Amino acid sequence: MALYVQKFGGTSVGSVERIQAVARKVQSYHQQGHQVVVVVSAMSGETNRLLDLAKAIHEEPTGRELDMLVSTGEQVTIALLAMALSQLGVHATSYTGPQAGIVTDSSHTKARIRDIKTQSLRADLDAGRVVVVAGFQGADEHGNITTLGRGGSDTTAVALAAALKADECQIYTDVDGVYTTDPRVCQKAKRLEQITFEEMLEMASLGSKVLQIRSVEFAGKYQVPLRVLSSFSEGAGTLIVADDEESTPMEEPVISGIAFTANEAKLTVLGAADIPGVAAKILGPIGDANIEIDMIVQNVSPDGQATDFSFTVARGDYKRAQETLNQVVAEMGSGKVVGDTNIAKVSLVGVGMRSHAGVASLMFKTLANEGINIRMVSTSEIKISVVIDEKFLELAVRALHTAFGLDKEDED
Amino acid sequence: MALYVQKFGGTSVGSVERIQAVARKVQSYHQQGHQVVVVVSAMSGETNRLLDLAKAIHEEPTGRELDMLVSTGEQVTIALLAMALSQLGVHATSYTGPQAGIVTDSSHTKARIRDIKTQSLRADLDAGRVVVVAGFQGADEHGNITTLGRGGSDTTAVALAAALKADECQIYTDVDGVYTTDPRVCQKAKRLEQITFEEMLEMASLGSKVLQIRSVEFAGKYQVPLRVLSSFSEGAGTLIVADDEESTPMEEPVISGIAFTANEAKLTVLGAADIPGVAAKILGPIGDANIEIDMIVQNVSPDGQATDFSFTVARGDYKRAQETLNQVVAEMGSGKVVGDTNIAKVSLVGVGMRSHAGVASLMFKTLANEGINIRMVSTSEIKISVVIDEKFLELAVRALHTAFGLDKEDED
Repeated sequence: MALYVQKFGGTSVGSVERIQAVARKVQSYHQQGHQVVVVVSAMSGETNRLLDLAKAIHEEPTGRELDMLVSTGEQVTIALLAMALSQLGVHATSYTGPQAGIVTDSSHTKARIRDIKTQSLRADLDAGRVVVVAGFQGADEHGNITTLGRGGSDTTAVALAAALKADECQIYTDVDGVYTTDPRVCQKAKRLEQITFEEMLEMASLGSKVLQIRSVEFAGKYQVPLRVLSSFSEGAGTLIVADDEESTPMEEPVISGIAFTANEAKLTVLGAADIPGVAAKILGPIGDANIEIDMIVQNVSPDGQATDFSFTVARGDYKRAQETLNQVVAEMGSGKVVGDTNIAKVSLVGVGMRSHAGVASLMFKTLANEGINIRMVSTSEIKISVVIDEKFLELAVRALHTAFGLDKEDED
Repeated sequence: MALYVQKFGGTSVGSVERIQAVARKVQSYHQQGHQVVVVVSAMSGETNRLLDLAKAIHEEPTGRELDMLVSTGEQVTIALLAMALSQLGVHATSYTGPQAGIVTDSSHTKARIRDIKTQSLRADLDAGRVVVVAGFQGADEHGNITTLGRGGSDTTAVALAAALKADECQIYTDVDGVYTTDPRVCQKAKRLEQITFEEMLEMASLGSKVLQIRSVEFAGKYQVPLRVLSSFSEGAGTLIVADDEESTPMEEPVISGIAFTANEAKLTVLGAADIPGVAAKILGPIGDANIEIDMIVQNVSPDGQATDFSFTVARGDYKRAQETLNQVVAEMGSGKVVGDTNIAKVSLVGVGMRSHAGVASLMFKTLANEGINIRMVSTSEIKISVVIDEKFLELAVRALHTAFGLDKEDED
């Protein structure tokens, strides 16, 4: 007998029929003798419907009232799912976030969980009941309803799994697992049986938006085994586990997946005076303008006098970043701003690359063979990212997928 | 400076525009320096939308899950109204029923209020804030969300007014007060400035469905001045007050209003053996069949042997009641069942009739003058009801309205 926390998102509970399908899935686990905690989001469309009502009334409502409003979305789902389970003969009790004992700080619309008082849930589980908890919400110490921000239901599920010491936290989505890369770009992409938390973090932040980053961090921190699987089909999905270097099997592939994004733009300050503090001088005003920076590359200056400083931003921030930089350069009295919006970023991710030399050289050789010029390079312990011309994005992903042995075997 | 509790029903908050109109009304009281607690229902249509979802999933959901579901309706309204007030520059805080400290028993879908812990509301009011409370809901001692049943928002308002010792509880509806009779039947009907709780109870139970009976009982018990007024227009409405016999003004009219219903049917057992327990023998099976009885009339038997026993039921229950009675008569071995569905009941209501003889005789004379035959009569301390042929209903109401001096004066 195991304890599972199962999370179903808005699409998975988007209609009466889908709620009934979720109930049947939960029932099958319960019938096998497992204890089940189900975490659900609002029915798809509901949160936006509520936000539209709010927008029609106030251009900038307080966070407290927004949370009061949107938290009703999940409350509707938990009641309906508990009814659907009961209709199948499964005893179930619904809990709002506050009722489930989820205590947060008072940062409305982006609250953080401080504590979970699990006594009530435990008692229900021990009595053989399925527990249905509203995701995305809690209450602060004064009893004010708070929300964890969009996508926060994943965090609720992982936090409950950690607090209840669940055997597995299952995140049901509309994909059947984590893939080596986006199957829409590379048909040979295959589902990973397993991936480490660290890899998942790199994959997620690079555009493979299967899970909320925060929930993965949380799961890694509390060592909660996390599984991504499909609401709509059978299959084991992908298990996300702690990286245990000792037990890493010999045949582990060097890289686990290829992430990419075409939503960035590149900015370079050419010929800035190479003096201490120049990076801060350039990036400080960018940060002040609330523009987030992704990659940063600075080369050693060949003459010790001037340096070329490059970074990437979200494409929507390009114009503002460019204007800010022009001012900076004018004030510094040196350098010139150039930029490019037609770029894409491709990243190889894998804990295996830590112990394997030659990943970068195979990557660069593969791209060169395809005639793809590399514009920027940045690396971390388990990731190598390159910036290339946007038009080469799909070609690069497919070539690298094959070169690193990620292609699925042809089915007979 | 006074403390007002103002209740707005589903129609009054049925759209963004109407919520904004409610906010302006509340603002005008707040600007005059008054403390205001606003109690709101779900936006019209919302509760039924939620119940339809439930029905699609479970033919008979548990009360706990139904309450979890439908209580979201009011929660949406309080958040939106608090936003609308804030948009007008009025500081407002929303409270769900549980947050407002409304503690009920655990009778889901028809819970009764046990206690209200007003500390939080008091603190907000004292800080100059408007408090917006979700009607119709509370929580039991275990924190389970409960609802007070349909129309329970009136009860929430009155209970809060009692607990906070409010100067007045204002119930905003789609009518501008309580009328001497239904203006659709009698054009000369006029709005009452004032009516007693007892009269209001008789009026409400007889078909003038302006307020929930339970809230009127509650207001009477705790001596909360209650005012019915319109959400959509200006005007003082009707004040419902305790009946203070000492201070009753000399010129108080004998009767306050005329209530009526055409939704009943009459059943008579003719010639039942006049022995102790015969009434129980006849009515017991009717009660067992869950048929509610309104008027009951039993005449003294002229020969001491047999009696005629009559009562009225809702017209929809007539057939079942008739079948039940036929069985009863068969078992008793005496009596005969006759009935009539084409009847109407007209009632005069007024605390004034206590001290005035001759109300009944003026009533009977007025009806006789119009050629209307009286089929049954029943009286209470402040009410006289007669059953007549349905076709005479409107004629009877208008004739009595004039005869008892209730007609409004012609406007110049």
